[in-house]
Amino acid sequence: MNARQAAWAYLSQVAAGPCAPLADLVGAVGPEEAARAVRGAELPEVLRTRTQARAHLDTAARDLALVERLGGRLLTPDDLDWPQWKLLAFDGTEQRADRESAAPLALWVLGRRKVAELTERAVAVVGTRAASGYGEHVTTQFVDDLAGGGWTVVSGGAYGIDGAAHRAALAAGAPTVAVLACGVDRAYPAGHGRLLREIARDGLVLSEYAPGTAPARYRFLARNRLVAALADAVLVVEAGARSGARNTASWASRLGRPVLAVPGPVTSASSVGCHRMIRDGEAILAARAADVVEAAGPMGVAAESSGPVRRLDGLSSRAAQVYEAFPASGSIGVRELSEGSGLPLKSVQGALPVLEMSGLIDSDETGWFRR
Amino acid sequence: MNARQAAWAYLSQVAAGPCAPLADLVGAVGPEEAARAVRGAELPEVLRTRTQARAHLDTAARDLALVERLGGRLLTPDDLDWPQWKLLAFDGTEQRADRESAAPLALWVLGRRKVAELTERAVAVVGTRAASGYGEHVTTQFVDDLAGGGWTVVSGGAYGIDGAAHRAALAAGAPTVAVLACGVDRAYPAGHGRLLREIARDGLVLSEYAPGTAPARYRFLARNRLVAALADAVLVVEAGARSGARNTASWASRLGRPVLAVPGPVTSASSVGCHRMIRDGEAILAARAADVVEAAGPMGVAAESSGPVRRLDGLSSRAAQVYEAFPASGSIGVRELSEGSGLPLKSVQGALPVLEMSGLIDSDETGWFRR
Repeated sequence: MNARQAAWAYLSQVAAGPCAPLADLVGAVGPEEAARAVRGAELPEVLRTRTQARAHLDTAARDLALVERLGGRLLTPDDLDWPQWKLLAFDGTEQRADRESAAPLALWVLGRRKVAELTERAVAVVGTRAASGYGEHVTTQFVDDLAGGGWTVVSGGAYGIDGAAHRAALAAGAPTVAVLACGVDRAYPAGHGRLLREIARDGLVLSEYAPGTAPARYRFLARNRLVAALADAVLVVEAGARSGARNTASWASRLGRPVLAVPGPVTSASSVGCHRMIRDGEAILAARAADVVEAAGPMGVAAESSGPVRRLDGLSSRAAQVYEAFPASGSIGVRELSEGSGLPLKSVQGALPVLEMSGLIDSDETGWFRR
Repeated sequence: MNARQAAWAYLSQVAAGPCAPLADLVGAVGPEEAARAVRGAELPEVLRTRTQARAHLDTAARDLALVERLGGRLLTPDDLDWPQWKLLAFDGTEQRADRESAAPLALWVLGRRKVAELTERAVAVVGTRAASGYGEHVTTQFVDDLAGGGWTVVSGGAYGIDGAAHRAALAAGAPTVAVLACGVDRAYPAGHGRLLREIARDGLVLSEYAPGTAPARYRFLARNRLVAALADAVLVVEAGARSGARNTASWASRLGRPVLAVPGPVTSASSVGCHRMIRDGEAILAARAADVVEAAGPMGVAAESSGPVRRLDGLSSRAAQVYEAFPASGSIGVRELSEGSGLPLKSVQGALPVLEMSGLIDSDETGWFRR
């Protein structure tokens, strides 16, 4: 255990959830200096109030040892594998609600896979704990198709739709990511202890809460923002009138992620929330996995290529592969691009808008061509 | 049988469906002069071509006698009961597709009720012939609630959703309107002979096709425009990928009527069309009858009050009743208006926008007030 990592662990235990001002302090002075300041309460008022009650909790060594014993690690912005959070930026002027959308300080992770790699193409599949047989069946269908298309399924590890989503991914031989609202050492819900161990074996179980942290209502809400942030789109399979899945969906909207909802029988209480979201324009209706991919695909790739656009820099490997299949001059059709690149038609169709937005290609009535 | 009525019957038999130029001719010279012109082929080219093949069919006396024997009548623009068609206007410059949206020349009607009165507050409930058990169940629920709220259900008399809609209305003791794509003397579909007789007893069976006309594909499409035109909103309960219900829905959109669709299990082929319409923004998701009323209510009433606005002229009795509940000066809340008018809260909420658009009332932070 090095001192810097111990400082991160300490700060994570003290913050106990999203804390944008603390993340800013760490960004400015580094974790060790920030940890010293927190311990000594040498802090601006807002941060002193926020950290005071927990500043004495120096369990870093124990926490790091525990998570290591469980086959995990503490992931921090120091790591190459730290995700490129596309959360709302924090500049100190936001309201409390916006400040809470900050990136996590650090992530406690069980599992060997890399977070950034596993969530490069990811869909959050969430829903009510009180899932119906229909909901579980449909979850399995969607996840099976998404996993087959190379999408990682992210969810919250809860009973109902979440559990069905993780299980379907595992059954399809695809890694899946569970984001918890408690420490990763806790099996919550208790009945999902074995499922969470299976998820960690092939995929990831992660949390921004230090080991030992108990679940709490506000932690579920904060956790939902990470589920949304780690995915290219959020799919709500079933949601009652007051389901937490709608909270995940609203995080997704704020983060610019597409939200989709699966309709169901109007006679089913478990679909009331989905129907309301669709009717009110908060969610796109998803009748099959292709609807999700259509919404998630181009956007997910587009987000990767944001920033200054320079030729193939910043393009996903898929988009670059499609671009390479273009002739140096003259135009080409989607089907030929699929054959030339060796990528499925859907992937080509997803990549074209990205390449177009990047200014690399254009189209006219003869087809697509390099600019 | 008077000569004018015989002329209408003749023209209806010859037109055999929507024929805007003929309707224009009748509007200009009257039915008897128009009939003489058609018989003598003294017509502009477009009309001669259109009427030539059927101009010899002088079955007017027989047709009128037949429909009278069946307890019906020929309804024409001469009648006070002729509906105020809110179809697209025809000025001769439209494309064929738009011309076919013309009002019918005349209507063959079985049943004693008045068309305009019965369709004053009407919802078209349509859907696939291949209805599922879910679809029939949901149709019954929606229609039961709509009928209870005083809405007339209009449909096409077909198997599946149409039949379930008519049956549910009858079961609720509410009159219902069936619009046929063949002569009203024909029981089509054959298995619905008894149902159509029951519909005619308490409600109406109507068609723009003269007695003896057989159903045909293009007649179903033309019939769908009348279903849409007679209703304040169209509700599609179940529709397959190529259901005719989507045709009715697209007529409704062209006529400015709200279109709603009921979602169902994504595993059901009978809901594919509904889901597509909702996803593509062609229909509002309807999870219960209140969703339909919300979409149909104010609009239906507003349409009534179109034309020159003079105080309470042209307002529905409901809107007038709400207006009467206003104090001469000072403002009032929705709940007080509901108590004062004796109308349910929903009705008051539906009437307020109409009264506001009519320039009769306005609102500010204190509530609503007379202008």
